[in-house]
Formats: sequence, C-alpha cells, structure tokens
Amino acid sequence: MEMLSQLDWAPGLSDPTSNRQAKPRTCGNTMVIDKGLGLKAYEDLLDTAAAYIDVIKLGFGTSPLYPKAILQEKIRLASQHDIHIIPGGTFLEIAVVQGAIADFFRSMNRFGFHGIEVSDGTIEMSRLLRNELITTARDQGLRVFTEYGKKMHGSKVEIEELLTTIHVDLEMGAEWVTVEGRESGIGVGFYDHEGRPAVEEMDRMLKQFSKLDKMMWEAPLKSQQVFFIQKFGHSVNLGNISPTDVLALEALRRGLRSDTMKGFGPSI
Amino acid sequence: MEMLSQLDWAPGLSDPTSNRQAKPRTCGNTMVIDKGLGLKAYEDLLDTAAAYIDVIKLGFGTSPLYPKAILQEKIRLASQHDIHIIPGGTFLEIAVVQGAIADFFRSMNRFGFHGIEVSDGTIEMSRLLRNELITTARDQGLRVFTEYGKKMHGSKVEIEELLTTIHVDLEMGAEWVTVEGRESGIGVGFYDHEGRPAVEEMDRMLKQFSKLDKMMWEAPLKSQQVFFIQKFGHSVNLGNISPTDVLALEALRRGLRSDTMKGFGPSI
Amino acid sequence: MEMLSQLDWAPGLSDPTSNRQAKPRTCGNTMVIDKGLGLKAYEDLLDTAAAYIDVIKLGFGTSPLYPKAILQEKIRLASQHDIHIIPGGTFLEIAVVQGAIADFFRSMNRFGFHGIEVSDGTIEMSRLLRNELITTARDQGLRVFTEYGKKMHGSKVEIEELLTTIHVDLEMGAEWVTVEGRESGIGVGFYDHEGRPAVEEMDRMLKQFSKLDKMMWEAPLKSQQVFFIQKFGHSVNLGNISPTDVLALEALRRGLRSDTMKGFGPSI
Repeated sequence: MEMLSQLDWAPGLSDPTSNRQAKPRTCGNTMVIDKGLGLKAYEDLLDTAAAYIDVIKLGFGTSPLYPKAILQEKIRLASQHDIHIIPGGTFLEIAVVQGAIADFFRSMNRFGFHGIEVSDGTIEMSRLLRNELITTARDQGLRVFTEYGKKMHGSKVEIEELLTTIHVDLEMGAEWVTVEGRESGIGVGFYDHEGRPAVEEMDRMLKQFSKLDKMMWEAPLKSQQVFFIQKFGHSVNLGNISPTDVLALEALRRGLRSDTMKGFGPSI
Repeated sequence: MEMLSQLDWAPGLSDPTSNRQAKPRTCGNTMVIDKGLGLKAYEDLLDTAAAYIDVIKLGFGTSPLYPKAILQEKIRLASQHDIHIIPGGTFLEIAVVQGAIADFFRSMNRFGFHGIEVSDGTIEMSRLLRNELITTARDQGLRVFTEYGKKMHGSKVEIEELLTTIHVDLEMGAEWVTVEGRESGIGVGFYDHEGRPAVEEMDRMLKQFSKLDKMMWEAPLKSQQVFFIQKFGHSVNLGNISPTDVLALEALRRGLRSDTMKGFGPSI
Repeated sequence: MEMLSQLDWAPGLSDPTSNRQAKPRTCGNTMVIDKGLGLKAYEDLLDTAAAYIDVIKLGFGTSPLYPKAILQEKIRLASQHDIHIIPGGTFLEIAVVQGAIADFFRSMNRFGFHGIEVSDGTIEMSRLLRNELITTARDQGLRVFTEYGKKMHGSKVEIEELLTTIHVDLEMGAEWVTVEGRESGIGVGFYDHEGRPAVEEMDRMLKQFSKLDKMMWEAPLKSQQVFFIQKFGHSVNLGNISPTDVLALEALRRGLRSDTMKGFGPSI
C-alpha cells in the first residue's frame, strides 16, 4: 500500500523524522492494546495504520472470549501486516495459577500467536519459573515480551529489582521489558495517581541501564506519550496505545502535532 | 457461532465461572448503552460479543435521529442475536411532557422495539402514571425496565423511596429496577463526584431488599464494574456499559482480568 | 436518505427544534475532529449522522499519515455528503515554519480538500502572513476557518486581541473564527484546568461582538456542549466533537437529552 510521506505530501517539506525506521524496527515500536475490537474495526486499524503498529496485545484475558473464527482472522491479518500479536500477560498468569502451562503453550501454537507476554502483575512468580516460561516460549519460536511491576493500585517500582529483572529477562531471550502502566496509566509503576511519571526515579534507573531500545513504556495517556517523546525522542518504544490513538501518536512521533512540533528529545 | 470457552481454550484450565448462565439469563445481565453506533460498528459488536449482551439501550433520545433504515436494521439484528433493544427513558419522558404517550407506544410497535425504559430522571411523574406506563407496555407485549433516580448532578438516593419504587415496579411487571448512574457514572445515584459508590447506604438498602437479580446497576466506569463484581459476584446485573468495554467486562466477570482474578464475591 | 424527524417518529410530538436549520446551515454547525478513523468507521459516521455534520477536520498533522487511497476516499465521501473536509491547522503551521506554503496549497488542491484552518496555536505568525494565507486560500476557492489562541497549557484569551482577530479574519474572508479548545478541552482558551469555561470573560467579549453565527466554539467535553447550548441556544456552532458523540450532541441540540430537555437558551 502506498503511504504518503511528508515529502511526498508537500515536496518542499523536509521530514524531521526521516530517520524514523520502517518496519521491522529495532526501536520506535508502538504496541497497541486491543480490548475487544470487532473484525471490521480491526481491519480499519490495519488498513489505516499498519505501518505504525509493531505489536498488538489482546488485553488481559479477553483472548478466549472471542468467537474462534474471529480470533483466527485477527491473528491471520496481523501476520499479513507484519504485526506481532500476543495475548495479555494476565492470561498466562491464570494458566500458571491453575497449573495449565502446557495447555497454554499448546493453545498459543494451535492459534498461531506470534509471541507471549510474561508478567507477574497479579500473582507471585519465582525467578526460576519466569526463566522457564521465557525459555519454553523461545524454544517454540515464540517472541517474548516481559513486564515488570504489580498491577495493584499504589504499587511502586523498586529500581534495583527492576534493573535485575531487565538484565535477566533480556539474557534469557526477551525482546524488551515493559514497565507496568496498565490500560489506565494511573497509580502504578512510574505513574502517580494522576498519571504523572516519577521523573527522578526514572532518571536514577536510566543512569544504570540506558539501552532504551530494550525498554517498552506503557503510556496510554496522551500526556505520557508526549512526556516520553520529549524525554527520549521519537524512537522510544510505547505501549498500551488505544487503537483510536495510533495515528495521533504517530503524528506526535513525527512532529506533526503541537506538543512535539518544535523539536525532539535526543535520538536513541 | 462457536464460542471459545476457557476449557476449550486450554483443556487443563478449570473455569471459575462455569456457573455463569448462558442467555437468556436470570442474572448476570449486561446492558449496553449505544450512543449512536454506525451499522458496521454495531455488527462488529454483535458478531464479537452478542453472547455477553442481554439488552442494548439506544441512549437518551437518539432513537429518532437515525435514518429509518439503520434503526430498523439495528432492531432486526438485535432480535436475531437474542438481545432486547429499547430506547432510553428520556425519550419516553419527552412524550409524557408533550402528551404524546399513545404516539410513543405506536412507534414502539411500528419499529419493533422489544421493551421500554420507564424513568423520571428529568420530569416529575406520579406513581399513578408510572403504573399506567408499565401496564400499557406489558399489555402490548413489551418488556419494561424501570429506573429510580434523578439525573440532576448531586441528586441522592432516598432509601425508603427507592425500596418502595422497587417493590411497586416489580409488582406491576418490571423485569428489574435500575439505579440511575447516567452515562458518566459521576455525581448521581449512589455515586459521588468522583464516581465512588456510597457503600454504607447501599448496604443499608440491601438489608431490606436483597433480590439482586431484580436490581440493575448502571456502572459505566471500570472501577464501578470491579466494585460490583467484587461485592456481589460475577452474576450481578450491570448497565450503561460502553460498546468498547463489553469484552473487558466479561473478562472481569470471569476472573480473566487482574482485578477479579483471585476470587469472586458471593454468588447471587 | 430518509431521516426520522421527531414528528415523523411520533405524530403527536411537537418538535422544539423545528427551527433548526438543515444543511447548508448558517448557524448550528457541528465540526467533527477525526483523529484517524478507518474507512469503515468513517462510512459508518456519514451513513448515520451526515445530516448533523458540517465540517470534518483531520486532526493536527495526521493528513499525510494516511495511505493515499484512504485519504482520497475520505475526501470524496465528505463531498458526497455535503460536508467540508479540512486538515488541522497545525499542518499548515508546519508548512509555514518550513517555508513550504506553496507546496501546502498545491497539495490541498491535488487532494481536493474543501478548505483549510489558519491558526497560530504553536508558532508565531504575523498579521500580514495570516492575511496572505487567508487570501491565497480564498483565491483558490478554498473555505477558510481561522482559529484564535495558543495551544500551550495555561494560555489565556486576551479579549482585545481576540476581538481584533475576529474582525480582521472575517473581513479577509474567513467563514468563522474558532476559539482554541484543543482536542482535550482542558486548560486552554476560555477553559480552566478542569475544562470549565470562564463565563465572565466570555460575557465581556460578547458585549463587544455578538454575531454568534461567526463564532465556532471548540467543545470536546459534554459539559462544555451543554454549557454552550444552555447559554446560546441550540444553534451555537460547536467544534472538536468526537465522531462517537455526534448523535449525542444532536440529541442535546434538540432537547432529546436530559440536560437540555426543559428548555433552550436564546435562539441566535
């Protein structure tokens, strides 16, 4: 499909994001959270914005609630548009609690998901089991996206713990590590009860780990998207983006919206 | 249409909601508010989530704003998927104010609506007229869903009045009684200006009326849905659900989301 | 397409908005902001609500992010439904900053946009250049919608400046002047950080300029829509309306929703 670039649009316009990578990208990834789109809305999303989407997550445990044919078609269409589709981490956590891990992986393969999210947002999980889940997935050709942080309101980031998690997860084969932001962006992870990021803590962490291409920030609120793009540049990885916000986020990344028009943070 | 059950999904997974009723349900109803979906989005909703929807309300007085063919198709598709479709109570209130009740009922029948909502959220209505509206609807084969509470910001629930309303409405033939929550879930009924439910008052009421299958709670905010499911269990009736939240709500009901994963309130 | 009027719906109902103009309207315009709808959702919007939409704005700089075929189809469908389609003002501001104004206008014509928005929400723009942009557009047969106000959070309306801007913009050929409200409706223009309008300032302004048909109010929040309809009547021009809110807004305009059911502001 022919995409309009800014230059194509108006030949005299220089494109401030001409260094924005095309897919498959090593940074500047956008991960969309799908809370239950119907097939027509899903097709709309891909027809309009597939070039700007790298991963689609079927939020929480919604995956088994779909009619089978719709789930299969969602996975097929994602493949066709070079988008990785994964179930939400909560669904794996449920399988863990119920001792149904093998069944979970069989279903992943039966349906053709491209990867999984490994998280412990709701349950307790030993480092050993976390390693095992990552390895099992990798052995089966699945991509692994891991997540750090509890979903409980008011839960905070422990910097040392986060750093350790990142190091080990990546070593085991994870693509990137997400810091929990939930679908709301409020009162978890680096966010306070109004969704504002704790900048000082974040900076303290980044002094010790600065490979931003290996970090994915859940940033459902526009204010958070602006924050990360201003702080880290247009190639920051951003997740839990609502399907209705994908073009607006891409406009932010490319300086096509007021908040980021005048400049960008340091390129990563 | 073949639906995935949790057990089908992963044979080793036990389904904590195996006692969730299929349609037609006597409890655990989900009522969706449709503020003006186009036909493709409406088809999407039914194709994806019809199994989880019991009633669709065309919000406020939007019904007469649709092109006739679209309204008729919405009603036809709802019938086909065993979903009751009704106009918002405000529309009937307008007919009452204008002395056009007979015309209102003729239109209900001409278009094939399955039921009506009887409310006095904006106007004053005598108990006598309320009885008459319920009876007229029942005589014409229409289902009746009644609502208690004013829409004015800051209006509170009067427990005695609510209890009386419930008793009489049900006796007259109403399916269930809704406590006003508006589309916003803020500052009306049992909700304060931040959408938090007044738990003590609610408990005081429930001491005197505990047939929860006859109560419908308008709970547009996720925090409210979590509250009711944690308090009353997965089979609580919940209304004014946004079309985009139906799968996410069903995930909450079935323990497939963090907030309700670890357990459920008392089954009703 | 046959629309249901209230009278058609229920012959006994008198229509309190029988004086609401049909398209093309001189007042009571609704301007929708499209942040990136796919084609099916866009068709849904037009099929359901075209009679209630006067202008569609492709928000910020999203226009060049669409696949070319989709953009062209959006413009074609808008024409077919007598809706003016324009790119967001930010996109023109970018062209200005980059010295690509001529290219911008060539693109407008190549794609067949019906008009443009002239704003200086992010950049500084001289009155001279503003005049030139309006004149150039008018000379090319494009409609011009201008906007007053900065997008920066906390920026306020300067009444004298606003009045001058309105007078000169209209004299140069603008259809109407918009007061900045952003997509959020928070902390800019006449809105405080909770989206409440500054009534006193607004009244002070209106003492000196009262041609409300030449003013467009960006009112993305429902509370703001209610405010303007109660203050100015159902024929006030309202903009930055979300596609999902068009029918709900029309219900407000026509007294088909609780908030505006009992009466209307002074007709304009």
